[in-house]
Amino acid sequence: MKTQVGIIGAGPAGLVLAHWLKKHGISSVILELRSREYVEARVRAGLLEQNTVDIIKSLGLSSRLEKEGIEHDGVYLSFDEERIHVPFSELTSGRKITIYGQQEVVKDLTDAWLDQGEQLYFETGAKEIVDFDTDSPKIHFEKNGEAGILECDFVAACDGFHGIGRKTMPKDSYKSYDITYPFSWLGILANVAPSTDELIYAHHKNGFALHSLRSETVSRLYLQVDNDENLEDWPDERIWKELSTRLATKGWKLKSGPIFDKSITPMRSHMIDNLRSGNLFLAGDAGHIVPPTGGKGLNLAVADVKHLVDGFVGFYKNNSTEFLDNYTEQALKRIWRAQDFSNFMTTLFHKQDEHGSYTYRLQKAKIDYIKMSKAYKTTIAENYVGLPFESFES
Amino acid sequence: MKTQVGIIGAGPAGLVLAHWLKKHGISSVILELRSREYVEARVRAGLLEQNTVDIIKSLGLSSRLEKEGIEHDGVYLSFDEERIHVPFSELTSGRKITIYGQQEVVKDLTDAWLDQGEQLYFETGAKEIVDFDTDSPKIHFEKNGEAGILECDFVAACDGFHGIGRKTMPKDSYKSYDITYPFSWLGILANVAPSTDELIYAHHKNGFALHSLRSETVSRLYLQVDNDENLEDWPDERIWKELSTRLATKGWKLKSGPIFDKSITPMRSHMIDNLRSGNLFLAGDAGHIVPPTGGKGLNLAVADVKHLVDGFVGFYKNNSTEFLDNYTEQALKRIWRAQDFSNFMTTLFHKQDEHGSYTYRLQKAKIDYIKMSKAYKTTIAENYVGLPFESFES
Repeated sequence: MKTQVGIIGAGPAGLVLAHWLKKHGISSVILELRSREYVEARVRAGLLEQNTVDIIKSLGLSSRLEKEGIEHDGVYLSFDEERIHVPFSELTSGRKITIYGQQEVVKDLTDAWLDQGEQLYFETGAKEIVDFDTDSPKIHFEKNGEAGILECDFVAACDGFHGIGRKTMPKDSYKSYDITYPFSWLGILANVAPSTDELIYAHHKNGFALHSLRSETVSRLYLQVDNDENLEDWPDERIWKELSTRLATKGWKLKSGPIFDKSITPMRSHMIDNLRSGNLFLAGDAGHIVPPTGGKGLNLAVADVKHLVDGFVGFYKNNSTEFLDNYTEQALKRIWRAQDFSNFMTTLFHKQDEHGSYTYRLQKAKIDYIKMSKAYKTTIAENYVGLPFESFES
Repeated sequence: MKTQVGIIGAGPAGLVLAHWLKKHGISSVILELRSREYVEARVRAGLLEQNTVDIIKSLGLSSRLEKEGIEHDGVYLSFDEERIHVPFSELTSGRKITIYGQQEVVKDLTDAWLDQGEQLYFETGAKEIVDFDTDSPKIHFEKNGEAGILECDFVAACDGFHGIGRKTMPKDSYKSYDITYPFSWLGILANVAPSTDELIYAHHKNGFALHSLRSETVSRLYLQVDNDENLEDWPDERIWKELSTRLATKGWKLKSGPIFDKSITPMRSHMIDNLRSGNLFLAGDAGHIVPPTGGKGLNLAVADVKHLVDGFVGFYKNNSTEFLDNYTEQALKRIWRAQDFSNFMTTLFHKQDEHGSYTYRLQKAKIDYIKMSKAYKTTIAENYVGLPFESFES
């Protein structure tokens, strides 16, 4: 098999990249380790920044997103049972977020790709990336027990944190950063209409809680728990009780319903300071993990792809390697911004020390400042809806 | 001796309080442990917020301040030898800071107080504050080896971190917070014209540096050093060389000159969550210490006094204890805001970990964000010039 850009991973990064390149007449083939069913059922993020929605629209892939996605024009920040509203559009000249599950994005983009007769191979494991320091890299893969080779000009590794993309990067080509937070998230999906019209981030003396949603009928909620917490210790009743306590505010009530998914996720940051080695490029989780507190993971992946597309279009259409050469630098600007914002939201809302401690007092001082300062509120709004690409051009 | 408000300490807090109360026809007497010469020579802060200047003006005590004070309309933030300018007036509807040494404020207010025939006793040590849980507290003092008593309705302890005010507060009446930062400031005063028109806060891989000033002919500069650093290891030449390195930017040169004052100050935060016990009130450093990074200490002291004056005027003129009862709460809102801002400036500009570390990357991400976001820049400007009192009324 031969193509221009060989893509590993049929997640949002790989699929957006394939469609976007096609629009510019650049060919690609996608290899995906898992089955179609697995990928499309995988529970992941569900918060699309304005940039992400704009990109999907510009690719002509947004018909279901526009019908079923739920636009949010703000967010609630709760601290010790008192809520503040941060209105996005008002503070960012009309920018918004859209609630639409990552697996729905993946379904839409997969359907469109295959309907167009393009190549995407499921249950096809990329085993080795070779010759990426030459003009003809090759991806060795395995499908149904048979070995194959995908020859290409460039390899885009969109294969997540555990994929072979990052593992293939020469160890001396990057410096890595690993942060593990001293708490995890217990997340649930429940068949119950959301009890709120916009997301609620809550700091409570018992710990952090987040009320998010997937649709008009499916709620997504999270609780801060210890890293060594056991799911067995959290029967449904205990989860709903704790969510009610932490999300509480006067005159408001949390609706509960049947929980159909329950998991514990550690909170961590992972970064490397180089996303390219020769003609191998990393995008999305393959290159960086942010804690989920700001909903940035999926959106960063799509932003990486924007810079990769600039690079490949520059190479194939304008005979210039400038954008490819600047890929790491351009992408990292936004990624570090997102790390800082995610870290800010994480440390602002999580319980880090006993209630009433110095750390708690500084958290409360920040919340009081959000209440009084339009400028501070705007910093939260503009990071949350995602800063425009122009902001990062210096 | 008898008065309405007995004031311990002839620093900015005590003096502003005395003058302001007099304006409302409320009498006070000030006791000061040190000599007049000592107090007026004491090197302290030199950055007056807009609120502080406005208050001194409203008391009719600003004639020299208006002549000799240097208005600054912005600040330079330097990171790895690149400078950003934050224009205050533009971002805060015309608010500014004024450079005018604390000892000059003290001289002006002392002269005016004594010229008006009011009572201020130097070299008079307050030894004990008694009966502050009754309507007639007493300050036992000693002057020239002789004991005396100042009877009053209220005691305002404006006697600094080491004074007897805080020590007199019952131990079970407050919770205290102590933070020691893992670095100190080596500060110098030098007879040389400032090399900059506005202050420069600099992060450099060698550590933090600050170029401040006292007047057109006296510069004030600081270097981050280790907590166990020895002044003997810092001859003048080494200090100037290090300042030049850390403050450097393309096309700019630091002028050096004779150093006439050199000291090392630890960086710390100290807070208590109650500033009142009965009729004893704490103001200024007696109640709180912030790291000097944002220039907040003196300005917080004057802000405390504003709330105390509201309280005493309410009591004597309007027969209401409402503002006295709210003193701690009102004052603490601004103090915690200042702690958070000072902590932000401290952690943003000081070297905390090796160059290129995760912490460094988040510092750099914040600096890059300051460059691109008017909202974020505004948060720095509005905290730096001081938030208006109205902002804290909820």
